[in-house]
Amino acid sequence: MLVARNTHRNRLHRSNSPMRIADLETPVPVVDLDVLEGNLTKMQTYCNDHGLRLRPHIKTHKCPEIAQMQIDRGAVGITCQKLTEAEVMADAGFLDLLLSYPLVGVGKTARLAALAQRANVAVSVDSEQTLETAAEAAAISGSRISVWIDFDSGAGRTGVPSVEDALRLANCVLDTLGLEFAGLITYPLSPEAGAIYEQAATLFAREGVAIPGFSGAGTPTSLTSHQTHGLTEVRHGTYVFHDRSTVGAGAATLDECALHIWATVVSRPSRDRAILDSGSKSLSSDRVPETVGQGHGLIGEYPDAVIERLYEEHAIVRVPEGSEGLEIGERVRVLPNHVCVAVNLHDSLVGVRGDTVERRLQILGRGKTQ
Amino acid sequence: MLVARNTHRNRLHRSNSPMRIADLETPVPVVDLDVLEGNLTKMQTYCNDHGLRLRPHIKTHKCPEIAQMQIDRGAVGITCQKLTEAEVMADAGFLDLLLSYPLVGVGKTARLAALAQRANVAVSVDSEQTLETAAEAAAISGSRISVWIDFDSGAGRTGVPSVEDALRLANCVLDTLGLEFAGLITYPLSPEAGAIYEQAATLFAREGVAIPGFSGAGTPTSLTSHQTHGLTEVRHGTYVFHDRSTVGAGAATLDECALHIWATVVSRPSRDRAILDSGSKSLSSDRVPETVGQGHGLIGEYPDAVIERLYEEHAIVRVPEGSEGLEIGERVRVLPNHVCVAVNLHDSLVGVRGDTVERRLQILGRGKTQ
Repeated sequence: MLVARNTHRNRLHRSNSPMRIADLETPVPVVDLDVLEGNLTKMQTYCNDHGLRLRPHIKTHKCPEIAQMQIDRGAVGITCQKLTEAEVMADAGFLDLLLSYPLVGVGKTARLAALAQRANVAVSVDSEQTLETAAEAAAISGSRISVWIDFDSGAGRTGVPSVEDALRLANCVLDTLGLEFAGLITYPLSPEAGAIYEQAATLFAREGVAIPGFSGAGTPTSLTSHQTHGLTEVRHGTYVFHDRSTVGAGAATLDECALHIWATVVSRPSRDRAILDSGSKSLSSDRVPETVGQGHGLIGEYPDAVIERLYEEHAIVRVPEGSEGLEIGERVRVLPNHVCVAVNLHDSLVGVRGDTVERRLQILGRGKTQ
Repeated sequence: MLVARNTHRNRLHRSNSPMRIADLETPVPVVDLDVLEGNLTKMQTYCNDHGLRLRPHIKTHKCPEIAQMQIDRGAVGITCQKLTEAEVMADAGFLDLLLSYPLVGVGKTARLAALAQRANVAVSVDSEQTLETAAEAAAISGSRISVWIDFDSGAGRTGVPSVEDALRLANCVLDTLGLEFAGLITYPLSPEAGAIYEQAATLFAREGVAIPGFSGAGTPTSLTSHQTHGLTEVRHGTYVFHDRSTVGAGAATLDECALHIWATVVSRPSRDRAILDSGSKSLSSDRVPETVGQGHGLIGEYPDAVIERLYEEHAIVRVPEGSEGLEIGERVRVLPNHVCVAVNLHDSLVGVRGDTVERRLQILGRGKTQ
């Protein structure tokens, strides 16, 4: 008989020593708290040095504990994408919330009004309809709501396409009781963003409209944010953990990557193929450009191995010829291509110092898309 | 002033009429219960007609209520991928569980043993290590565990590469107290699967080893499963909802798609671009082959519009020239490219009959990857 018996009692026995990464069930997102704290401090120091207010985007971590670490270091508030995220953060005690997302409809209006009654709320708008949401919410709640005008800096995402449109909306804000004009906002902080802002500043000045602030975001260009003329605030998100994308963009080193998905080799059908238990339901299917790297994440211990395919619960790894290791039962750490979507797949993160598990961090904003 | 005021009280007022899809906050996964029930009945009828036992894979819906609907129609048990999914289903009262996944390690062994004490458990194995997991779990629990031998039918995923390997593992199972040989299992049910099974049947017969069952899976080929020689069981999953992939594979019509992500147009920066509030955190980033379609999901009302890019919370839609509609505030339904990963992003599904909301279905297995 193949299987050694009666060994299980020994193997299942663990001493009272601290829990280690090797004790965790996989797949599991593990955060190196030293690296995380280093990233938080580095970004806050950078912002302080350049007179930029940091209002980090919590969409990356969706975790009140990490948001608190950002506030403790000097962040002036937090940024959320969806109302549900902001509601979670308000529940956790955060009282200065920017919703950098167009809010539309009766339900969103009522919820924005409710939120404005218990927190300082700012929104971004790029249309008359989203401005109306803010105006109605301010009226319903009797609370003041700050409004940023979103402009397109080249990404072709949201945002008004011209500075004239921005001025028109800004004047509407100024004419509306209960609303306060906060300034101009954009994503990402492209090279064009500064030039468009300068056009706007010229136009607004000619019309006698002051622009209180200029907010930009995007971890890939975060450390050159100060080169954007007129910028007063930044809303970077991914910098807390970094990932294969931000490393590929030159915004971080691999040593600054704080979050990995730890996985186990569960099958080794051939010498050139190993299977990890971390599929698209653990890592997400987001890709990186070919110039950044191949496959669905980078295996820290085997950077030459390629995660060629992802199924929902399988990562199919092409093992380089002659490579040792990646045997069944071995654990490896995978750097996700895009950490924000990977985090959103899990209920909690495991915080470690070195190899020792320190605590769990609950991702209370996970799945909050509405 | 641009904004009409004092209208909000009327607009927020709703009568006591039933809740409609239009009342739901978006983005939201909505299941047409009539279509769902039709899909369940159709597959069960097909299996009954062809003498196939249906043991559906719950990874698609991760929802005990839907699993119960499958059992009620005649499913002989359910299939799970990860132990955490099986634990959720055992908690919900399901007592016949196949884990079609290689289980490795001390933690998985202990949990499999615990599960085997409260449910009838079968596993699939493709290595001595995963067979050892089953053997130890059986020994710890004092319960019998059924073991399927997983073979590779061409996908290059898990599974032993040869019928000789399958026989070797089957003999180990037969030699191990507490384990029961259940048969041969594969995914997907490729054209090669039947031929490989026939080779195995010949070899096993020559060695005097009976093969109790042959299990295959894969919705794309589900309606031709019966053409696979020797097949006794199927574990199809996606057929409950269908999606753009299974429609593309010819396994369903658009009318048989039971789940859509309802989304709202939140920005319309130009005539050729609309933004939906359903990004990769609602739809997932899974792609379909170019031959199936372009972009990140199919907009039911605007099949010619293309979801060109997904950000985490934005779907960027290219609107065809001259197209009407897709104005800010309009709601549309998006058929996901891959419904299994889309469902896993949400905490619950909204079940509707026609336009009327009937009930919420909790996705209790969501995020259960360990």
